Amino acid sequence: MAAEVTAQQLIAKHRPTLDQALQTIRTRAYWSPHPEHPKAYGEDGSLSLPEGKAAFDALQGTRFELDQPGTDDWVGGEVSPYGPELGITYPHPDIDTLLPAMRAGMRAWRDAGAETRAVVCLEILARISARTHEFAHAVMHTSGQAFMMAFQAGGPHAQDRGLEAVAYAFAEQTRTPDTADWNKPQGKRDPLAMTKRFTPVGRGVSLLIGCNTFPTWNGYPGLFASLATGNPVLVKPHPRAVLPLALTVRIARDVLTEAGFDANLVCLAAERRDEGIAKTLATRPEIKIIDYTGSSEFGDWLEANARQAQVYTEKAGVNTVVVESTDDYKGMLANLAFSLSLYSGQMCTTPQNLLIPRDGIRTDAGAKSYDEVVSDLAASVSGLLGDDARANGILGALVNPDVKARLDAASGLGEVALSSKEITNPDFPDAVVRTPVIVKLDGAKPDAEAAYLSECFGPVSFAVAVDSAADAVRLLGRTVRAKGAMTVGAYTTSEEVAAAVEETCLEECAQLSLNLTGGVYVNQTAAFSDFHGSGGNPAANAALCDGAFVANRFRVVEIRKDA
Amino acid sequence: MAAEVTAQQLIAKHRPTLDQALQTIRTRAYWSPHPEHPKAYGEDGSLSLPEGKAAFDALQGTRFELDQPGTDDWVGGEVSPYGPELGITYPHPDIDTLLPAMRAGMRAWRDAGAETRAVVCLEILARISARTHEFAHAVMHTSGQAFMMAFQAGGPHAQDRGLEAVAYAFAEQTRTPDTADWNKPQGKRDPLAMTKRFTPVGRGVSLLIGCNTFPTWNGYPGLFASLATGNPVLVKPHPRAVLPLALTVRIARDVLTEAGFDANLVCLAAERRDEGIAKTLATRPEIKIIDYTGSSEFGDWLEANARQAQVYTEKAGVNTVVVESTDDYKGMLANLAFSLSLYSGQMCTTPQNLLIPRDGIRTDAGAKSYDEVVSDLAASVSGLLGDDARANGILGALVNPDVKARLDAASGLGEVALSSKEITNPDFPDAVVRTPVIVKLDGAKPDAEAAYLSECFGPVSFAVAVDSAADAVRLLGRTVRAKGAMTVGAYTTSEEVAAAVEETCLEECAQLSLNLTGGVYVNQTAAFSDFHGSGGNPAANAALCDGAFVANRFRVVEIRKDA
Repeated sequence: MAAEVTAQQLIAKHRPTLDQALQTIRTRAYWSPHPEHPKAYGEDGSLSLPEGKAAFDALQGTRFELDQPGTDDWVGGEVSPYGPELGITYPHPDIDTLLPAMRAGMRAWRDAGAETRAVVCLEILARISARTHEFAHAVMHTSGQAFMMAFQAGGPHAQDRGLEAVAYAFAEQTRTPDTADWNKPQGKRDPLAMTKRFTPVGRGVSLLIGCNTFPTWNGYPGLFASLATGNPVLVKPHPRAVLPLALTVRIARDVLTEAGFDANLVCLAAERRDEGIAKTLATRPEIKIIDYTGSSEFGDWLEANARQAQVYTEKAGVNTVVVESTDDYKGMLANLAFSLSLYSGQMCTTPQNLLIPRDGIRTDAGAKSYDEVVSDLAASVSGLLGDDARANGILGALVNPDVKARLDAASGLGEVALSSKEITNPDFPDAVVRTPVIVKLDGAKPDAEAAYLSECFGPVSFAVAVDSAADAVRLLGRTVRAKGAMTVGAYTTSEEVAAAVEETCLEECAQLSLNLTGGVYVNQTAAFSDFHGSGGNPAANAALCDGAFVANRFRVVEIRKDA
Repeated sequence: MAAEVTAQQLIAKHRPTLDQALQTIRTRAYWSPHPEHPKAYGEDGSLSLPEGKAAFDALQGTRFELDQPGTDDWVGGEVSPYGPELGITYPHPDIDTLLPAMRAGMRAWRDAGAETRAVVCLEILARISARTHEFAHAVMHTSGQAFMMAFQAGGPHAQDRGLEAVAYAFAEQTRTPDTADWNKPQGKRDPLAMTKRFTPVGRGVSLLIGCNTFPTWNGYPGLFASLATGNPVLVKPHPRAVLPLALTVRIARDVLTEAGFDANLVCLAAERRDEGIAKTLATRPEIKIIDYTGSSEFGDWLEANARQAQVYTEKAGVNTVVVESTDDYKGMLANLAFSLSLYSGQMCTTPQNLLIPRDGIRTDAGAKSYDEVVSDLAASVSGLLGDDARANGILGALVNPDVKARLDAASGLGEVALSSKEITNPDFPDAVVRTPVIVKLDGAKPDAEAAYLSECFGPVSFAVAVDSAADAVRLLGRTVRAKGAMTVGAYTTSEEVAAAVEETCLEECAQLSLNLTGGVYVNQTAAFSDFHGSGGNPAANAALCDGAFVANRFRVVEIRKDA
């Protein structure tokens, strides 16, 4: 099959972007090639907001054709957290047919080399970028994110994380040259001389197990890291969030085909309700790599049972913010209020436990008692979400009934400092929209531990009264060690306390945001600069993105001969 | 404690060497800072051959003091494969005392940073290099290697592999800068500005499980990769080969102390006979990294059970050479004869199965039948080892009675093409020295499979008659897939056959040496240039040395704040 687009054309088009990404992962300065503003789209072949909406609408109630081998059924059932059923059905695979077919294109993909693989991945990302507004709606109506967040986190930010993974994968594969001449002196005799050729080879089929809340943002790093290192990728989306990854698979297949490669290097594995296909796939001998985001229970199962594969997991944790003192009380409250509210606390990075000394804290607005801090924070959240339109824009919708159940139960865990309120979404009357609850707990009471030492995923935070800053630091360390954490925050004007928190984060391997009072939030990380997770505490065994995330997805085969 | 030597002094001394190593792992040209000739030692504070021998002699019959915490016994029992008992006893650890003590120095070691850790490691290697002649005797009298091999492989080549690991570790840790300024434009508003600090942190105590045959060569990569990335290293030597690693631990402790660090960052765990301390240590929660060389059985056990640790294994495989045709028959025979004989075939890289078409092969000396090839190879081995002094210098001694038992049993597996002979070592009359056996097997006979599809570690090779070149390539692929391989060799003048062998090695992830007829042998790899193992077939889950070998031994903790 003749390629419609050559590797040389793709290199000419994308190499500057790749080079900029390679430079940025070394400097970790700000950079992104993917515009964050909705109005930046609509020209040069990209979809405008209404075009994206129309494309999304046109998909509803249809069969999502992918032309994959071994399709034995059509499955669906996605219901938007905003109410509507999507009515889309996807191909269900006979995996005994699909998995062998996915290996067929591996050799040509390997022989294409690291640079061609990278620019093909960049072309896929560019096509995804052009359809960002379609993805925004797809992400919104599967995750329950509000539109702006679905647009940004599901669009440019996810694409950034994918590009970052491609850059790491390319850098890793090109650490070793393609060829080498080796000449070893032998005194007066002729030197020993050899020529050597080094080829990065993929490990086998890579399985991406997608999540409900961030199907693209959490899915793209593993997908692109594996594809760029020579592995076919089988995408198993969360059954409630198939569409964003199905769109991704379709675009990847189109680009692969146009570039002369086998479309089956990227396939979709949609599943029947309660089929649990991930468990079946994860232990298949063809599957050599697994990327997973989701519950600790299944993540731990994968790590223990998918022994034939490299397993990269992002699981659950308990995120802590130490509130000890601040020189910007208002800024701190505003920053925390937004962190707790964004996407109804349904981020793996949302703070859960706020550790506040029971004797209160020092601030630029004077001393504040524990009760004052908690009530001021509650007021700040209430103020932020006081306007229903703004509240809807920040909160989005609850992604599933489990979150609502946990939210409802939370008020029974302690004294409620801020009750959850129901918000109406005029555009989507069936959406379940709730403001966060803040519950007071006493860290000294053993019966409170069960609450604050468990992850309560959703819009639930605990204001935990602690004896002192030192007590807070101890509890922080204990929490990360036992439960893991994707993020840690701290507010303190004391160098001593800051040093103690920093040392605990270094010791327990947790990512720390210190004294955030402006427009950056503890729950947000920027690709190319911030690591998402550390890979060194129980919340995740990998970080997005670093050398360890890509280095073992391929191996280097050396062929040497006498020169 | 004031350091006797400062980081700045060590940087001034070793940074040029580190830089050269960093450059060489990128070019993969020849380089080594460690002289390969015995006479290169004896000046500038290094031990000459007689001084090294004297130092080794002085150790015998003594207690090997290390001043480690938690020593509860003194254990020993090493007997040289050349006969003499070493009579050395080593500290046996109470691991409940030793493991916590090893963590005490981690923080200062972390805070020292990647460059200081690297140059401290290079100082350790430089001190080891200066005592190369002492190590040569220690390796010889624990592994059974002949002196020259013990000197080279146990000395400079092992030191090269250690330095290579330090270079990879340093490169990996410094991919991310120490600090970054991040400024994100916000249109007309002020940009978002943050400062970020990135710190590589070790995972915890690293366990090195040493092997009998190459205690330093196989031990140094893991030891130095872990130490350079901030982890304390507990060295558990093979009970028959303690001394080379005990010397290493002593030197490491001396250097750490002199540089102002805690000596307990490197400790020894010697064990009582049949204690099996490796199994106990491997599942301790403090152990976060394990490096292992040895049997597949225990390697597989570690991978399955040491779930709290990153596990890097080099296990057993079945190495194959395809003999299809050659334009240098004499060179091929000489090269193969040496490969089969070196260290009595007791290398994980020694060829075991020679696949030869039953219809014979084309050569520059005319067509040769299968029988002729086998008998010519047998004659070549006999010629190489015809002189007892030279034979002793190549063969060394059998490392343990199991090897001799396998050798004795091998002649019952098929028609013997070359019998093993006993060689007397006049210097060490108790040494068990044997020439290799070559056994003919028919690849078409199912009952031969049990022999050639199992690893028969030691001086045993099988000349397997195959139907054709294509049959040989198929069997090669099947062998690597099922049993793994550290090395593959092939002799062919056919581009088609070469391409088929290369494709099989790429497909099955095996390192290939093609048409070696000179002074480089399939069983030898050079640090900085050749990968040892691929990490992609059952013989090993890691390669020496690449990014994957170091990248997950540490994590990066980020601390960010508003600028």
